[in-house]
Amino acid sequence: MKTKITELFGIKYPIVEGGMAWCSGWRLAAAISKKGCLGIIGAGSMTADVLQENIQKCKDELKDIPFGVNIPLFNPIAKDLIDITVESGVKIVVTSGGNPSLFTSYLKEKGCIVAHVVASLKFALKAEAAGVDAVIAEGFEAGGHNGKDELTTMVLIPELVSRLTVPVVAAGGISSGAAWLSAMSLGAEGVQIGTLFALSEESSAHENYKNYCIGLDDTSTMLALKKVSPTRLVKNDFFKEVISMEDNGATKEQLLEFLGKGRNRKGTFEGDISNEVSIGQCVCMIDSIKSISEIIDNLVSQYESAYRNLSNFALD
Amino acid sequence: MKTKITELFGIKYPIVEGGMAWCSGWRLAAAISKKGCLGIIGAGSMTADVLQENIQKCKDELKDIPFGVNIPLFNPIAKDLIDITVESGVKIVVTSGGNPSLFTSYLKEKGCIVAHVVASLKFALKAEAAGVDAVIAEGFEAGGHNGKDELTTMVLIPELVSRLTVPVVAAGGISSGAAWLSAMSLGAEGVQIGTLFALSEESSAHENYKNYCIGLDDTSTMLALKKVSPTRLVKNDFFKEVISMEDNGATKEQLLEFLGKGRNRKGTFEGDISNEVSIGQCVCMIDSIKSISEIIDNLVSQYESAYRNLSNFALD
Repeated sequence: MKTKITELFGIKYPIVEGGMAWCSGWRLAAAISKKGCLGIIGAGSMTADVLQENIQKCKDELKDIPFGVNIPLFNPIAKDLIDITVESGVKIVVTSGGNPSLFTSYLKEKGCIVAHVVASLKFALKAEAAGVDAVIAEGFEAGGHNGKDELTTMVLIPELVSRLTVPVVAAGGISSGAAWLSAMSLGAEGVQIGTLFALSEESSAHENYKNYCIGLDDTSTMLALKKVSPTRLVKNDFFKEVISMEDNGATKEQLLEFLGKGRNRKGTFEGDISNEVSIGQCVCMIDSIKSISEIIDNLVSQYESAYRNLSNFALD
Repeated sequence: MKTKITELFGIKYPIVEGGMAWCSGWRLAAAISKKGCLGIIGAGSMTADVLQENIQKCKDELKDIPFGVNIPLFNPIAKDLIDITVESGVKIVVTSGGNPSLFTSYLKEKGCIVAHVVASLKFALKAEAAGVDAVIAEGFEAGGHNGKDELTTMVLIPELVSRLTVPVVAAGGISSGAAWLSAMSLGAEGVQIGTLFALSEESSAHENYKNYCIGLDDTSTMLALKKVSPTRLVKNDFFKEVISMEDNGATKEQLLEFLGKGRNRKGTFEGDISNEVSIGQCVCMIDSIKSISEIIDNLVSQYESAYRNLSNFALD
């Protein structure tokens, strides 16, 4: 399959790993890249040193096989993370959660391919104007931090495809070959997958987190913390406290004080599943922890099967 | 195109009209049915007499061409509306917003084909157990009243397809042939379309409503009123009042008192666009008011075009 995204990144399948804090370490990124997709190191939960180590291990493991680094621009050490990434010779950078005009020109000057994560047309147009090579358009159903406008993948993708020149990667809710095909039907040139990869053997998330998440169903998550930064949370005790505060009119400051620091680390990386736990809505489709190799083989065979099934629905 | 939905309803294209209060009168339903899709009279905003008149006009206009009636089960006169529908000889009934076990057996005894609108797996399984012939699975992006679990079309459809025996009709966010194809890729056997039809020439909504809505963009709507009944609202003055109350911790009772009665009628049917105005997220894709004939011709040609485009993305 050739798409603008396979061509841009030099990969076999137009599948990009979501740059997930506490999940997307070098093991996961390398495993995904080895299967012909684009592995991404999620720098959001790393210090500059830890990022450097992760990049080096990916390079050792992958040689010439491409991989990238995701850097959330709201991160206080974003500039350090970008410097390390560039100095380490990484050639693919995904930026998210901030203004794409901050670093895109710099990264392009350094010879990087740059994609930016967006959640509405306005920010997609800003990213395009800043010179990105692609946008990753993330719908409301996605896990983690989320846009303020709550646009779903089904609405966001065709809207962006109709208005942008750069290729669009669809993100949010993609956990099967059928959903991947569905995104391509909407005009996406590729997909970003988070949840499904977060629950793989190679993900650096804690086993408690993975085992808890594979037991969840379609009603297990909800977007919350909209006054702070919209985040898709699993409905555990932590979530219930947040919602109770929100329902009673808690201010942003009160919520920030309650949140404190390091909660996502505790839930995802340390395995305290009564703390902040985030995952995408499509977690309902995942009921076991598999290796990346098996997951990507499944995606490919599901895609082929959905594609064949669609031939029953030709119009003529 | 043959799908389980075209076969079930005896229609050419697997497209079902959303049963929209104040939009889905006999003119819209008849126009849609005449184009080979399934027109649906939205009884939710009608008295029994008005429904009877609408059914009669559809019958006069359509002769043997199939059409249906949508009845929201939370409506205090739901039983009257069902009686009129059955007595008038309508053979296709869509129920929504309530318990499918209430009337499904009765409707089936009377020879009706029954579909029920759901927004999560739990309610889909209930509908299937109640004996419905199909479920209409409506995602978070849809206009009007919405499920409590905020599942998007991209997540809800594959989940239901994998767990149900009855065919699934995808609803929410479908406003183009590409989105229709995307839903079929997810395993749906058909789509329900609301927003696009609500803004057609034949829709009984007020011209002010239609003209206002075609000027909206992707960030113009938001789900609100979650303590009362989740409703997708346009961000006008009415919405701002609702949000201000919600942000300050208003109770369900306070919100109900503020809402009073007839607000949806005022916004949609009387054209007071500072009042309650609801439309789907995909309104961002619609910039003019067209006839149903042109809209459905466009959907078909867009579907064909998206289908052809997908042949570039075969895997082998």
